[in-house]
Amino acid sequence: MISKVLIANRGEIAVRVARTCREMGLRTVAVHSSVDRDSAVVRMADESVQIGPGPAKESYLDIPSVIEAARIRGADAIHPGYGFLSENPDFAEVCEAEGFTFVGPPAAVMARLGDKASARAIMVDAGLPLLPGSRDALDSAEKAAALADEIGYPVIVKAVAGGGGRGMAVVRSAADFPRAWAKTKATAQAVFRDGRLYIEKYLDSARHVEIQVLADAHGACVHLGARDCSLQRRHQKLVEESPAPRLPEDTVREMGEVAVRGALAAGYVGAGTFEFLVDPDGRFYFMEVNCRLQVEHPVTEMVTGIDLVREQLRVAAGEPLGYGQHDIAPRGVAIECRVNAEDPARDFAPAPGLLTECALPAGPFVRVDTHAAPGYRIPPLYDSLLAKVIVWAPDRDQAIARMRGALAETRINGPGVATTASFLRDVLDHPRFRAAEHDTGLIGDLTAPAVA
Amino acid sequence: MISKVLIANRGEIAVRVARTCREMGLRTVAVHSSVDRDSAVVRMADESVQIGPGPAKESYLDIPSVIEAARIRGADAIHPGYGFLSENPDFAEVCEAEGFTFVGPPAAVMARLGDKASARAIMVDAGLPLLPGSRDALDSAEKAAALADEIGYPVIVKAVAGGGGRGMAVVRSAADFPRAWAKTKATAQAVFRDGRLYIEKYLDSARHVEIQVLADAHGACVHLGARDCSLQRRHQKLVEESPAPRLPEDTVREMGEVAVRGALAAGYVGAGTFEFLVDPDGRFYFMEVNCRLQVEHPVTEMVTGIDLVREQLRVAAGEPLGYGQHDIAPRGVAIECRVNAEDPARDFAPAPGLLTECALPAGPFVRVDTHAAPGYRIPPLYDSLLAKVIVWAPDRDQAIARMRGALAETRINGPGVATTASFLRDVLDHPRFRAAEHDTGLIGDLTAPAVA
Repeated sequence: MISKVLIANRGEIAVRVARTCREMGLRTVAVHSSVDRDSAVVRMADESVQIGPGPAKESYLDIPSVIEAARIRGADAIHPGYGFLSENPDFAEVCEAEGFTFVGPPAAVMARLGDKASARAIMVDAGLPLLPGSRDALDSAEKAAALADEIGYPVIVKAVAGGGGRGMAVVRSAADFPRAWAKTKATAQAVFRDGRLYIEKYLDSARHVEIQVLADAHGACVHLGARDCSLQRRHQKLVEESPAPRLPEDTVREMGEVAVRGALAAGYVGAGTFEFLVDPDGRFYFMEVNCRLQVEHPVTEMVTGIDLVREQLRVAAGEPLGYGQHDIAPRGVAIECRVNAEDPARDFAPAPGLLTECALPAGPFVRVDTHAAPGYRIPPLYDSLLAKVIVWAPDRDQAIARMRGALAETRINGPGVATTASFLRDVLDHPRFRAAEHDTGLIGDLTAPAVA
Repeated sequence: MISKVLIANRGEIAVRVARTCREMGLRTVAVHSSVDRDSAVVRMADESVQIGPGPAKESYLDIPSVIEAARIRGADAIHPGYGFLSENPDFAEVCEAEGFTFVGPPAAVMARLGDKASARAIMVDAGLPLLPGSRDALDSAEKAAALADEIGYPVIVKAVAGGGGRGMAVVRSAADFPRAWAKTKATAQAVFRDGRLYIEKYLDSARHVEIQVLADAHGACVHLGARDCSLQRRHQKLVEESPAPRLPEDTVREMGEVAVRGALAAGYVGAGTFEFLVDPDGRFYFMEVNCRLQVEHPVTEMVTGIDLVREQLRVAAGEPLGYGQHDIAPRGVAIECRVNAEDPARDFAPAPGLLTECALPAGPFVRVDTHAAPGYRIPPLYDSLLAKVIVWAPDRDQAIARMRGALAETRINGPGVATTASFLRDVLDHPRFRAAEHDTGLIGDLTAPAVA
């Protein structure tokens, strides 16, 4: 039912999607901005179309250009990757209206789940535990402040339409509340064109654990276990692993079951991720659903042996999953490190440029997903993710040792170029990470200026 | 019990061993010839020692130089890789005598199994099925010819000390026998310094299937399933896979059981390989034991999740395996393709030189073991293996599709350089390989001159 896939993305994820399409015998159309014309996916895809100039809003975010490229090249499906248009229900709707198979959930489902307030309402009805907070958008700072007093500080203010770590602020006292509210509203309005906000209880030492689900269009849904993504810097994940360490098997099973229940309640189809916070006592709270492939999906692939892009394409083509929960048999431990073109010594400022050297790790149980190669010039216009280094091992200690070795092999250099590779090695060496006692605060502690 | 490992090898296997040592926290000493001074393992190892000029017999095969390097650098163990000194019982014995842990079976076991006649005798006593033939070296061409008449042509003449596809000849008629015997004897004398020969029945359409075993020094031994290595060119393996396709589970289990029985009977310790021929009716015949890591060991690693070099080092250090046969749970299918610096258009003549381009595949379930990188100059002195591309997938069709994609990503170029990458793609596309109906004759058929 699908024979030609337009990949509406760039960078490593465009390469990732192209590889699976190739393996499935599907033809591929790469779309690219003018600055990405020499990118890896353009060489790899069967066809390519330049859809606009460098700035994403004039190319990768420009719905008419993407749709027109799909029409001209005769694509019958569109894979949005992550970021860009991947969680834009308008885009999914246009795809559907124009007769293209959108590789993701139905537009209506995405709209319901993309709105965090409505997503929370659906999930509460499906029995998922939530942190105390407002179930809906709050229409005034005063009402929000009153609720914050009621549930107790700290609280977090979040944009209903937020994502990618933007449009959120932690507030620790009533005095700080009005300013945080106003600032987050302005950000939300500017970034998401939707100023609606909600609040919830903020956990200071929580772990970010997410459940990968896969659902077909015939009512079957499974989960593929948990990923721990607690190692974040300013709400951007840096290191992810599966399974979630030190999380009891019963807890993971329960999280998986409620995620599947939530996915079925929402009418979900495709690959999706249920994000939870887990408190130090092992209680978990539903946060949101990501209606797309995650950057960190490879760790789930490595432990389950399942190619998530393949499953996305199969399900989008109307195929049944063909297996059930008891067929999912995770093995070992996988860890992913995001090597970003950022300079840890300059507060992680983007450090793009020409790669005169680009040696990436290889060998047993090491996987690299990247679009980078020697001679590649990182454009300064897009996000700084350069390569994902993923390792697998029978246990967590071996996986960490393997990742340390893989990062040691990573040599990426060029004028003005810096990466997070050596910073990631420091993170892996941290006793709290080694002991799996880290939480979302660890990177903040590592990078905070020393207090006299 | 081991803290510093000297790697007595070069090329991809030296890099392979160094990676696992690093992960295990073992220090490494690379030894290298003068032409390999800029090689990957020299950069990767903690220390390096130049042990002689380019020709292997003056460096990698020079026992005193290797032992002296180990002594000077304070190594306590020596990993021989494959080829070179890896199956030389004298070397293993010198290691033992000089107080170094040899990462391989005891010298006496290696001597017994390295001599094919004595190996066959041990295995027959242990109940392993053998092809009809001489159990011992035959001391004259006349006796050999008489036996060949008795068991019927075709027969194969083999050097007792042979290996690596050298020192063997297929003979199809009594008239050809004397000449083949004399020629093989001369080769055996020249290459292995041991002119003893034996003969056995030759199967025209047989599959080469081997069983990986792992044994500790405390009497525990497991097998890690089968590898099919039927795709050979002049007895050199080109494509290997695990599990062996179209081989009934019962047959594999039986082969595994007899291999374990044979290993225990021989007093084997470490990682070893039992090679079998399997005829079209599924009957299997023991051929020989390889007392070392095989080039194709990664396919077993990918399906079992077990790092064979790690197990070699653990067992060499005296650790017990710590698991039994029921703990080995292979998953999916792995395929390895050997990308050699050889020109298929010139009868696979070596095609070394400077690599101006060296793009290797990556991504989901793709592994590359190599010492090559852009700017590497392949020396003409050693074997032509440049990179091993290994893929894993849930089933064989997906694994083949993945391998095709991986080979398509492989771009290795330079003045005078040619590789087998595109030839390997043709092999993968062959209907007999697709259907797993290939045998050891397939590559010969593909590369034979067309008959008018």
